[in-house]
Amino acid sequence: MKINVDELKKHAGEEIAFSGFVDAIRDKKWVMFVILRDNTGKVQMTIEKSEESNKELLEIMSNITVESTVKVTAKVMENEAVKLGGLELIPSKIEVTSEAEPLPFDFNNLEGVLIDTRMDFKWLDLRNEKNMLIRQVESTLIEAMRQFLYDNRFTEIHTPKLIGTASESGSSVFEVKYFDRVAYLAQSPQFYKQMAMAAGMNRIFEVAPCFRAENSNTNRHATEFTSFDLEFSYIDSYEDVMDLEEDLLIAGLSKVKEVYGDKIKEVFGKEVIVPTKPFPRMRLKDLYQELHDKYHFDIPTEDVGDMNAEAEKLTFKLAQEKYNSEFMFIVDYAATKRPFYHMRDENGKLQGYDLIWRGMEITSGAQREHRYEELAKNAKEKGLGEDVKFYLQFFKYGCPPHGGFAIGVDRLTMLLLGLSSLKETQFLFRGPNRLNP
Amino acid sequence: MKINVDELKKHAGEEIAFSGFVDAIRDKKWVMFVILRDNTGKVQMTIEKSEESNKELLEIMSNITVESTVKVTAKVMENEAVKLGGLELIPSKIEVTSEAEPLPFDFNNLEGVLIDTRMDFKWLDLRNEKNMLIRQVESTLIEAMRQFLYDNRFTEIHTPKLIGTASESGSSVFEVKYFDRVAYLAQSPQFYKQMAMAAGMNRIFEVAPCFRAENSNTNRHATEFTSFDLEFSYIDSYEDVMDLEEDLLIAGLSKVKEVYGDKIKEVFGKEVIVPTKPFPRMRLKDLYQELHDKYHFDIPTEDVGDMNAEAEKLTFKLAQEKYNSEFMFIVDYAATKRPFYHMRDENGKLQGYDLIWRGMEITSGAQREHRYEELAKNAKEKGLGEDVKFYLQFFKYGCPPHGGFAIGVDRLTMLLLGLSSLKETQFLFRGPNRLNP
Repeated sequence: MKINVDELKKHAGEEIAFSGFVDAIRDKKWVMFVILRDNTGKVQMTIEKSEESNKELLEIMSNITVESTVKVTAKVMENEAVKLGGLELIPSKIEVTSEAEPLPFDFNNLEGVLIDTRMDFKWLDLRNEKNMLIRQVESTLIEAMRQFLYDNRFTEIHTPKLIGTASESGSSVFEVKYFDRVAYLAQSPQFYKQMAMAAGMNRIFEVAPCFRAENSNTNRHATEFTSFDLEFSYIDSYEDVMDLEEDLLIAGLSKVKEVYGDKIKEVFGKEVIVPTKPFPRMRLKDLYQELHDKYHFDIPTEDVGDMNAEAEKLTFKLAQEKYNSEFMFIVDYAATKRPFYHMRDENGKLQGYDLIWRGMEITSGAQREHRYEELAKNAKEKGLGEDVKFYLQFFKYGCPPHGGFAIGVDRLTMLLLGLSSLKETQFLFRGPNRLNP
Repeated sequence: MKINVDELKKHAGEEIAFSGFVDAIRDKKWVMFVILRDNTGKVQMTIEKSEESNKELLEIMSNITVESTVKVTAKVMENEAVKLGGLELIPSKIEVTSEAEPLPFDFNNLEGVLIDTRMDFKWLDLRNEKNMLIRQVESTLIEAMRQFLYDNRFTEIHTPKLIGTASESGSSVFEVKYFDRVAYLAQSPQFYKQMAMAAGMNRIFEVAPCFRAENSNTNRHATEFTSFDLEFSYIDSYEDVMDLEEDLLIAGLSKVKEVYGDKIKEVFGKEVIVPTKPFPRMRLKDLYQELHDKYHFDIPTEDVGDMNAEAEKLTFKLAQEKYNSEFMFIVDYAATKRPFYHMRDENGKLQGYDLIWRGMEITSGAQREHRYEELAKNAKEKGLGEDVKFYLQFFKYGCPPHGGFAIGVDRLTMLLLGLSSLKETQFLFRGPNRLNP
């Protein structure tokens, strides 16, 4: 496989094949410097003009546009004078593998470029170092989180996104023309994660797209997003779920810090802070009191029993000031504000939580109601009938106590890197007005 | 986290908490044996009837139905007389965590149970040891294949499944009501994988659902399936793609053999064979000749330049007989039988391949056409216009040579375990008549 820029050092003194984008050309009187780029960095290629044998190479490079791609045969030379990693390539052969038209904008300087233009030309936007790093960090974050689950013997599942009934949550659902009937796009794998528990699969996870037909244009909503979902059995309480989420996030953030910590600081000016256990946990009632006392904030009547965006922001402030933590678990939400499948105790107290990070809710978790009678009662209370009937069946033939949570991958990445919008964060954003490219 | 059955040995002599399904109850005169089960195995719980202190436990177990779940506090005792792992649990406390109604069928004996009934009650079907193993093997297979890609510095991406234009392949596409317009469900991430190449992402992969609105009912087609997709840049030829696929499959199958090889042999009667490199490679023309000479098979006129199901079966036979291999790459397909984005050389020869394993095509791969002019010409030749216009733009601003392939995860698992149908293989099958549960 191709040698990458950050692997060149190992090949110092060798003649190798190297491929990349032409990042820049600096045509001096006696020498031509060509900066080549791949997703791991940049390297300088030096062509001396005095060398007779370089005539053909200079001819090729004089006619090439930046952002074209080349494959070169070159000697890797150590040279302390070269700022780019102390290395240069001395080519003996250059082959142009693709030619670039002039670009519609300068991806190295995106200030002033409309976010819609950037999305229209996402493949050019991604050539920006920052945006390339977003993709790499997200990939590494998920890799580490998956690894943590494999180490804890979780099984990966792939639940269907085409479903027969629209149900579960209040947010709207997309309709699909499915031969001679209507199907729907899954808003979450919740019901199927729980089906796996009823099947006795013990511990499962899935990283997959979710779909929400919400016609809203905020910086943190998308009609399609990637969800990191897990569910596990034989828990004693939702505290077990919170404990697992702590370990999972620590595993993910540790790896990101290890691999990209310095680069994230350099490029985004953000410190990757690996949290310590336990994360602070606060009851909603106590939180309201603290927010009132400290920040003169009172939750609006319609949101009592729940959070809102402002409360989430202040909770982050409180977590930092009071606990020196970026994370805070909030518990004791009102059952009326939460899905019917969240367990309640004998006093009706909800056995679930939200996790707030850097001013936003990144996850909702809970022990689930696994007892058929209770679950059926809760569903009825929420006015759910035919649509959840198939789901209720899962709990008739024995089902262990279980719980789980979901993390929005895009949102997690956005907060990790301090990005302002999912439009910047997602590989390809999807919103009510955005289906392209 | 819960101690699993296969972890009990480590706790011999200790008093522990153990949870699981009640798999069976054997009520003898002097003793009650209760078999408990989780996804890692079964263990015997022994309750002596003569012990006065066991009265309450016996009372609980006399009233419980099989497939209910329990949480017990018990001492783990080594006992060579116990067939199940030489261990037994001596309980001091039993808590019933869920109660099972009588099951609609015996999941331990699925012979005679209609596949549709099994799908209707998939969470019970999965309690069958074989079906549980399918899930575990598939998870481990993907884990190992992903690990191979991480080791080779691939970045994971999440491409949108909601797309603005229906395009790419001949198979039909699902329509989605998307606010006041129509969206489509992606049949594959092909275009977006290539967009990542144009972005300079170098090496990427995705494991995600694909959707095909094909009204066909075969054992190897589903309307939704999981695809393991990858694409990488700076290749010299489609041979590089085949080489990578060899390594990937070897990595995946090695790990499966290591972890589950014995169990797969025991439960499915199938040997996991880790292939060696290189896999045999044959030109389509030569294959036709061999199939004719050896098996008197001639490809029907309408399939000339391509394969059909019968040819795939015989190719497997040939691969085994001639090369002692389960795998065979077929190259030199007719360009007319392949998508417009597969590269052709200067003589029009297709730079792609299919891989046949155990009588079925498991993957199509190719070097892709990365040159705008050529690509536009090929698209036009196939009669593609407006719908691929956005895709063609990816190649205007420099794009390295690249290639890739897709593997149907469900089909791979089906062949690995010798299953007869995707209905048996998928976590939840989706076909024209199947959207539930």
